[in-house]
Amino acid sequence: MFFASDNCGPAHPAVMQAVMDANTGYQPSYGDEPLMDEVRSQLRKLFEAPEAAIYLVATGTAANALTLSTLSQPWQTLFCTPLSHIHTDECNAPEFFTGGAKLSLVGTSDKMTPADLTQAVEGWVLGDVHVSQRGAVSLTQATDKGHVYTPGELSALTSVAHSYGLPVHIDGARFSNAIAALGCSPAELSWKAGIDTLCFGGTKNGCMSVEAVIFFDPKHAWEFELRRKRGAQLFSKHRYLSAQMIGYLANDLWLENAKTANARTAHLANGMRVVHGFELLADPQANEIFANLPRCTHQRLQDAGAQYSLFGPLQGDNPDESLSMRLVCDWSITVDQIDQFVRIASGKD
Amino acid sequence: MFFASDNCGPAHPAVMQAVMDANTGYQPSYGDEPLMDEVRSQLRKLFEAPEAAIYLVATGTAANALTLSTLSQPWQTLFCTPLSHIHTDECNAPEFFTGGAKLSLVGTSDKMTPADLTQAVEGWVLGDVHVSQRGAVSLTQATDKGHVYTPGELSALTSVAHSYGLPVHIDGARFSNAIAALGCSPAELSWKAGIDTLCFGGTKNGCMSVEAVIFFDPKHAWEFELRRKRGAQLFSKHRYLSAQMIGYLANDLWLENAKTANARTAHLANGMRVVHGFELLADPQANEIFANLPRCTHQRLQDAGAQYSLFGPLQGDNPDESLSMRLVCDWSITVDQIDQFVRIASGKD
Amino acid sequence: MFFASDNCGPAHPAVMQAVMDANTGYQPSYGDEPLMDEVRSQLRKLFEAPEAAIYLVATGTAANALTLSTLSQPWQTLFCTPLSHIHTDECNAPEFFTGGAKLSLVGTSDKMTPADLTQAVEGWVLGDVHVSQRGAVSLTQATDKGHVYTPGELSALTSVAHSYGLPVHIDGARFSNAIAALGCSPAELSWKAGIDTLCFGGTKNGCMSVEAVIFFDPKHAWEFELRRKRGAQLFSKHRYLSAQMIGYLANDLWLENAKTANARTAHLANGMRVVHGFELLADPQANEIFANLPRCTHQRLQDAGAQYSLFGPLQGDNPDESLSMRLVCDWSITVDQIDQFVRIASGKD
Amino acid sequence: MFFASDNCGPAHPAVMQAVMDANTGYQPSYGDEPLMDEVRSQLRKLFEAPEAAIYLVATGTAANALTLSTLSQPWQTLFCTPLSHIHTDECNAPEFFTGGAKLSLVGTSDKMTPADLTQAVEGWVLGDVHVSQRGAVSLTQATDKGHVYTPGELSALTSVAHSYGLPVHIDGARFSNAIAALGCSPAELSWKAGIDTLCFGGTKNGCMSVEAVIFFDPKHAWEFELRRKRGAQLFSKHRYLSAQMIGYLANDLWLENAKTANARTAHLANGMRVVHGFELLADPQANEIFANLPRCTHQRLQDAGAQYSLFGPLQGDNPDESLSMRLVCDWSITVDQIDQFVRIASGKD
Repeated sequence: MFFASDNCGPAHPAVMQAVMDANTGYQPSYGDEPLMDEVRSQLRKLFEAPEAAIYLVATGTAANALTLSTLSQPWQTLFCTPLSHIHTDECNAPEFFTGGAKLSLVGTSDKMTPADLTQAVEGWVLGDVHVSQRGAVSLTQATDKGHVYTPGELSALTSVAHSYGLPVHIDGARFSNAIAALGCSPAELSWKAGIDTLCFGGTKNGCMSVEAVIFFDPKHAWEFELRRKRGAQLFSKHRYLSAQMIGYLANDLWLENAKTANARTAHLANGMRVVHGFELLADPQANEIFANLPRCTHQRLQDAGAQYSLFGPLQGDNPDESLSMRLVCDWSITVDQIDQFVRIASGKD
Repeated sequence: MFFASDNCGPAHPAVMQAVMDANTGYQPSYGDEPLMDEVRSQLRKLFEAPEAAIYLVATGTAANALTLSTLSQPWQTLFCTPLSHIHTDECNAPEFFTGGAKLSLVGTSDKMTPADLTQAVEGWVLGDVHVSQRGAVSLTQATDKGHVYTPGELSALTSVAHSYGLPVHIDGARFSNAIAALGCSPAELSWKAGIDTLCFGGTKNGCMSVEAVIFFDPKHAWEFELRRKRGAQLFSKHRYLSAQMIGYLANDLWLENAKTANARTAHLANGMRVVHGFELLADPQANEIFANLPRCTHQRLQDAGAQYSLFGPLQGDNPDESLSMRLVCDWSITVDQIDQFVRIASGKD
Repeated sequence: MFFASDNCGPAHPAVMQAVMDANTGYQPSYGDEPLMDEVRSQLRKLFEAPEAAIYLVATGTAANALTLSTLSQPWQTLFCTPLSHIHTDECNAPEFFTGGAKLSLVGTSDKMTPADLTQAVEGWVLGDVHVSQRGAVSLTQATDKGHVYTPGELSALTSVAHSYGLPVHIDGARFSNAIAALGCSPAELSWKAGIDTLCFGGTKNGCMSVEAVIFFDPKHAWEFELRRKRGAQLFSKHRYLSAQMIGYLANDLWLENAKTANARTAHLANGMRVVHGFELLADPQANEIFANLPRCTHQRLQDAGAQYSLFGPLQGDNPDESLSMRLVCDWSITVDQIDQFVRIASGKD
Repeated sequence: MFFASDNCGPAHPAVMQAVMDANTGYQPSYGDEPLMDEVRSQLRKLFEAPEAAIYLVATGTAANALTLSTLSQPWQTLFCTPLSHIHTDECNAPEFFTGGAKLSLVGTSDKMTPADLTQAVEGWVLGDVHVSQRGAVSLTQATDKGHVYTPGELSALTSVAHSYGLPVHIDGARFSNAIAALGCSPAELSWKAGIDTLCFGGTKNGCMSVEAVIFFDPKHAWEFELRRKRGAQLFSKHRYLSAQMIGYLANDLWLENAKTANARTAHLANGMRVVHGFELLADPQANEIFANLPRCTHQRLQDAGAQYSLFGPLQGDNPDESLSMRLVCDWSITVDQIDQFVRIASGKD
């Protein structure tokens, strides 16, 4: 009953097999291996983006921070929601890699609206040397509350951003889950909706540690390569990053894993709906559930070894007090585990 | 006939097996998995350093830059040789991670002497607010020319550094090769010789991508953890770093691989000694050979598909002109390949 | 009728005279001149802080950014209000000088409360390596809306900060105006209220360009000196900074100027109260007025050459529409100018 | 007898008068005052550069560091001599303001040659992502040893730099002294010789604290303005910087002061030539003398209150030991002081 994070599950056997397959003989280092050519070719095809500049790095924070720094100047402010991972969970990595850019928080929830974005951008007066200059917009897809932006919602946001000359970045650690939820194509959910660069996550969805950075316009390619090296993310034995991505792309594993994770999440949410005191805090659209449960139910679950994020003290006088939680399903969670969790929550186990 | 770099060879099967073994079920993320406890325990034992703070990162540049930044202030100058990797091959990563520290070049070769170091440190006047302040000393072991510092040589250098209050760091991408060459213990070649922190390389010597950072004095532990996260080197599915190191440490694979690589290098150097026009530029003590060969011999080798670093133009009028080269043996190079290389160089093939 | 900013007025003749007096013969450079000893001595006496480390820099942004960087680590977040100058008017200078620290915005107005501060600090979980670490608190006194914190209010805030181990900084570009408004001593409004460091402004209140940085605990002194030099704020002919401060401190000019500016502001506010459509947006406690006026009144004032910050378009269909404004009185503004302004606003001129 | 530094002398009365003249009434702040228009106009005329972008900052370190950062990327290496002020005397300010660029040291003396520069630039392989990328070239004029580059020497160096696409910067803290020494025009010694940007010093040559930054190609203007603000060097009461420069330019004071300083230096060198044991270490072409004197002569001078930089211990057994020294003449030093110094050195006083 492991719902703590999609970072806690294993890598998919097909990814591991691809890594093993790559482990033969000598290969050029630093991304010059033929396998990376294959990655580039496949991702360009998948995204219908024959000109895209494509790179691999090993962590989501690296993907975001290096990409944003390439799109930014240190005297600018980036725009993101207050719940975005780059603001809440990266210990100032964006500020570090950009050389001191500011993050301006847009709106109050996990999804920003065009009105929110307009207001935030207008908050920094154009052409005034005293203020932070307007910089890139960063969206999270799927969001940090498990929601998705539709292509139409993205287009509306990128229209605003582009009207100010600002590029748009997607933190796509769970981009595959968004695709799985929306049923649209990768192109529809990225450049066709005006997205300039995408961090396409692999780690949370079945890989060991690999994220693809995709610049749909390759003009920043060389700068990114320099920033990647200087940022200590250019891997010498790069073939193992490439191999993971090869395994991830083959047979649409990236999509199948995401569909599985989303379906399991829906199954879990559905099962929990009848549990006493269970209240959804957000509509689960991808692979995360944010909800409330009574303390006594949490105690039962945790006693049974269930693992998930609990926000609030497990110990307390009031057994009926509602405490919020996050439940994440990765591609490897089984229906049995979910059903067991629901049974325990229901008091039936 | 692959002598281009120890970055081009495969990972050892035992390392890969350890990674596969780790790929089961759910595990805590970000280094909290039990496997990392095991890594910590084994490295402390290997280094006879029960208090050491130990971390894993994925690239040598990350290991060096994060460690040096933890030991430094941005208004200081680090001290390293002009041939050190941190100066010549990291695209300003040390300057970036330290927030703008300077690198002062010590001496003129790959090994610094106490006199060189003293002169360099004295070059920056103590207590003068106008000048770069004296900072950490960085040594490379084995060096960038394939040499090793003996424990005595290290002690002499750390004595100088410590007399000025400066900590000493080792870039140990090829530390195992130095151990194999010298036959001393890891402790003798590190803290017992006054070394404060060591980057203990795995990638070049049989792993996919893992380097251990060892602070023999744990006082900087928490700062390093923050710098690692902010520097985008804290891996979510950290178990795969841990597993590599587990496989690398088991049965002294780290040492066996290094011994093999060094022995192959000696075999190659020995074979080449009789080749017409072959001149060693440096005494090969670890797994690198720097030497000259006539252009026509280079042409023969390259025509036969040999891969190595050639410094100078392969095309040229004078077939007898001497051009320098670097030959690196990794753990996986075979005696057959070496012998074939020598035969071709000798004109016997 | 110049109410645009206290940056637009002249320096006080006594300050200029002190500068002229200092312009004789040779003097040690870089703050080693005897005049700086005198500054240090006088400021320590004024603040009843015999141990304080005291430095001069030339701009308010430099004073704030250098001081905050000395109190911070680059992986921390500073805490300030959304209206604070360091957030709204310094083009990422704090982020730059700190090496990439974040600014967390506390509350929603120009004055933070202990509850606001507690909530903001608690928003960053202690000991979690993924999040920005808790850092220094920065208060502005007088605030960016012309308000003042009382000693009691400061003590309540510093108690919260210190309970978390966080130092407290004051951006005191208008600290003198706060002293003049409150009638308390400099010590009461700084270290006695728990303030750790103060930027004591001179520029806006009668100097050319000088700000004193006061560390009540001198433990950071040498680090600040290095940061000042590296930050390009160590003046070679430092005597001219010292001389300004000497002229500013003599005969309590700093206080007299502030009293004058505050009194003029009160006179202006009082005069405007009867003007049709005039609405105070904030209680003017120091030397700034934030208020509304009808568009037609603005037009009359601007046609007459009055200078001040108008927020909103002067041109517009509705002459009665209320547009907000900022009026600042510096020490040199005359009662005549103020009365003329009021007469024009009243339609009597 | 003050020969310690041109930073120790007073400002010229004409500069002070201009500052006093500017101290009347209200003026726009932050460089928008009419006086700055006048500065811009006069400097463009003086340099025959009608398109130049021109800014004022307050310290030489700020001028250099901000200008170099505008010309550079943080993954580049700048090129300068090992004696350059930006390397030896700015406590990593260039590294800080550039975001971590490296300084590569060119040649071994205070003047670099085209061959030195070519060798240094070629040392960093083009297009290799692993190495520091080639960046701006920084020259010092007059140099840190009191020498000057002729227009021909500059052209030869800028030709090399431009052949690699690298911009050339001049640290011109003593640029006026070079003009005075060479008798050529400011244009001949800057853009006509291929210089891209010049820091035109005022502080050392009769001002309080002002340096002009001149971009002969204005394409970097807005970026520089942002960097200046973010670097805390945009002065609110900017009029006092402008006024100094106005006073400095009027009646060619900048040139007259430099001529005086150079002439005094020549007079001093001439007088010293007959002093027992006096050995010039470098040909004094501007306003600095580097020379040796016996210890006993130093003792006599210092006993008499002479102030200058002495390199080596005044106390010592051997009264005849030669110790080196630096003597600097500013515009205000008198012939009497010089003659007195020479008399004491000669043992005639």
